[in-house]
Amino acid sequence: MYYFDNASTTKVLKPAADAALKCMTENYGNPSSLHKMGVDAEDTLTSSRKLIANVFNCKDEEIIFTSCATESTNIAILGVANSKKKVGNKIITTTIEHAATASCISHLENNGFEVVRISPKNGKYYAADIVNEIDDRTILMSIMHVNNENGLILPIEEIAKQAKNKNPNIIIHVDAVQSFCKIPINTNKIPIDLASVSGHKINAPKGVGALYIRKGIKIQRHSFGGPQENNLRPGTEALPSIVAFGVAAKTHMENMNKSIEHYTALKKHLLDRIKDNPEILLNSSDNCVPYIVNLSIKGIRSEIMLHFLEEKGFCVSSGSACSKAKKSGVLQNMGYSKEREDWAIRISFSAENTINQIDMLVDAIEAGQKSLIKTY
Amino acid sequence: MYYFDNASTTKVLKPAADAALKCMTENYGNPSSLHKMGVDAEDTLTSSRKLIANVFNCKDEEIIFTSCATESTNIAILGVANSKKKVGNKIITTTIEHAATASCISHLENNGFEVVRISPKNGKYYAADIVNEIDDRTILMSIMHVNNENGLILPIEEIAKQAKNKNPNIIIHVDAVQSFCKIPINTNKIPIDLASVSGHKINAPKGVGALYIRKGIKIQRHSFGGPQENNLRPGTEALPSIVAFGVAAKTHMENMNKSIEHYTALKKHLLDRIKDNPEILLNSSDNCVPYIVNLSIKGIRSEIMLHFLEEKGFCVSSGSACSKAKKSGVLQNMGYSKEREDWAIRISFSAENTINQIDMLVDAIEAGQKSLIKTY
Repeated sequence: MYYFDNASTTKVLKPAADAALKCMTENYGNPSSLHKMGVDAEDTLTSSRKLIANVFNCKDEEIIFTSCATESTNIAILGVANSKKKVGNKIITTTIEHAATASCISHLENNGFEVVRISPKNGKYYAADIVNEIDDRTILMSIMHVNNENGLILPIEEIAKQAKNKNPNIIIHVDAVQSFCKIPINTNKIPIDLASVSGHKINAPKGVGALYIRKGIKIQRHSFGGPQENNLRPGTEALPSIVAFGVAAKTHMENMNKSIEHYTALKKHLLDRIKDNPEILLNSSDNCVPYIVNLSIKGIRSEIMLHFLEEKGFCVSSGSACSKAKKSGVLQNMGYSKEREDWAIRISFSAENTINQIDMLVDAIEAGQKSLIKTY
Repeated sequence: MYYFDNASTTKVLKPAADAALKCMTENYGNPSSLHKMGVDAEDTLTSSRKLIANVFNCKDEEIIFTSCATESTNIAILGVANSKKKVGNKIITTTIEHAATASCISHLENNGFEVVRISPKNGKYYAADIVNEIDDRTILMSIMHVNNENGLILPIEEIAKQAKNKNPNIIIHVDAVQSFCKIPINTNKIPIDLASVSGHKINAPKGVGALYIRKGIKIQRHSFGGPQENNLRPGTEALPSIVAFGVAAKTHMENMNKSIEHYTALKKHLLDRIKDNPEILLNSSDNCVPYIVNLSIKGIRSEIMLHFLEEKGFCVSSGSACSKAKKSGVLQNMGYSKEREDWAIRISFSAENTINQIDMLVDAIEAGQKSLIKTY
């Protein structure tokens, strides 16, 4: 199979998998144990934490490990809401968030919080539109950095700076899952307070995430148990996956520029190949990352094309994996028509994809256009 | 190192680690993806779920995967409390629970629930003492199956049957972390409703747990996001760890009788070796499992002996790993003196431990008794 679904999940890098394996069968102590095996495990945990902190250019103690970005987002959003509910009850977010953020915020809305959801204008976000909504009662803003369906980049630096100018007490959470290790996020320059990230989007195993928590930010704990992870995430740490996460993050950071060049070349080639095909509509603008390309193949429902491509040996997605076949509505919230969302496929790259694979993929899409019955 | 701290965490079995590795680098799809890689991942998830369901003799759909037993316990206890709070507010538990249960229940107590905590009598639990406390307003009982510090077995079958007789609406949660795959838990015979278990106590990786939820039991969700795990545990499933968990559970189940024989022989040998040493007090009675032995070495604080043994190449624990050096008070709640808790070390076995290792360990403890300065 040629795997073009790296925004859903990725293959674990060999050195990351090897590090996990070693942690399962050799360095298998519990970081909370007092003996040598425990101390070795704790040292490993600390080293991995440094590697994640490096990505954010933050202190080690500003990173806690979680089991996935969804858990990070729950800890962040529910934690802020519960600790700040006496100060205010307004929350600002966007209409294009991942289910983790959207669902946490809907839960709060059902429990009395006022929620304002901002839509993009002409397919992009302007800081002013978001910041305009901030008032004294606004306790939390949760926005994504890069959209998971079409790769749209939100100007988080501009938004965060203007938001803090307007209300210095607002807490800013960023879903950085699709930008982590791919676009720099320097927390010394960007005044965000919380950021959720995931291992399995950057070639670490499924089952590990992290939450950046700026020093001084107080959030109520979401779960109860032991004192692990600064009293915010109880339970024995998932050391094999955490170690692999650190290795994967380090590898990505060392190769960030090279990767961006590679993705840019792949995207350019893909767009060159489809630009004269009037039946293929591009849903990823110039404001999008180079590693996610969303296309609508006129008249052919996503799942039909997805399964046709699968037969030919290609894995692509029909949108966010997390919602299975169900459409999220995010592309419509971005201003695309319902038909265009129904026809959308997402192609997302890893370092392993090649120009030659793109050619084969486009050939397969075009074969699909010829052989699949159109419904419009 | 000779590792005698298997109640804290365990070495991952080779076939389990190999299965995880394969899942990281070959079968790395997202179970929610619609293409072949996703379907293969979903099939793997289903097979693993069956292996865990087999242990409980329950239906596949009665098992959800979590990131650890602490998460399972949070989902269970907080989920029941939130869904039943209109029916009643009384919760029954014991004074010897793990931090996960104890901390969830204290949180509920701080939020208006009435909590009754039952202590053992003469170092053991009698069903009547627990069941006596149940009334019409009692919505939840949470008890452990096997205590993590000295291996005490609670008569969960008797307790659960009598509890359901007294109040058929009571929900019963069992922390089965230290009994899972070691003592049969047949949910067809034992009327428990929820049970929390962990992978890393049975030679699977840290970072995976499961929750048994009897069909028909409604609990409110604890976290928000995608629809994974029956809408109760959002976030991409930790497939590598889940697969390894399934393999480890299967291996343990196939070897349960042999393991019990092995642990029984190890414990017998250990007790024979120490029985004439008046300075070593046994904190694990005949009502305890054979794989956890808690001893107090008169006059020598746990940490002092632990580090002495570490120097000699042995890993043991001073109590629950999760609380680090801090004593939990559980042994005192069982009726042992404060001094005895201060002197306690926990020795917990795996299949890899041998009679010869027990001899060496006892030799080392006796060397410690001679060389360490006593403080009484």
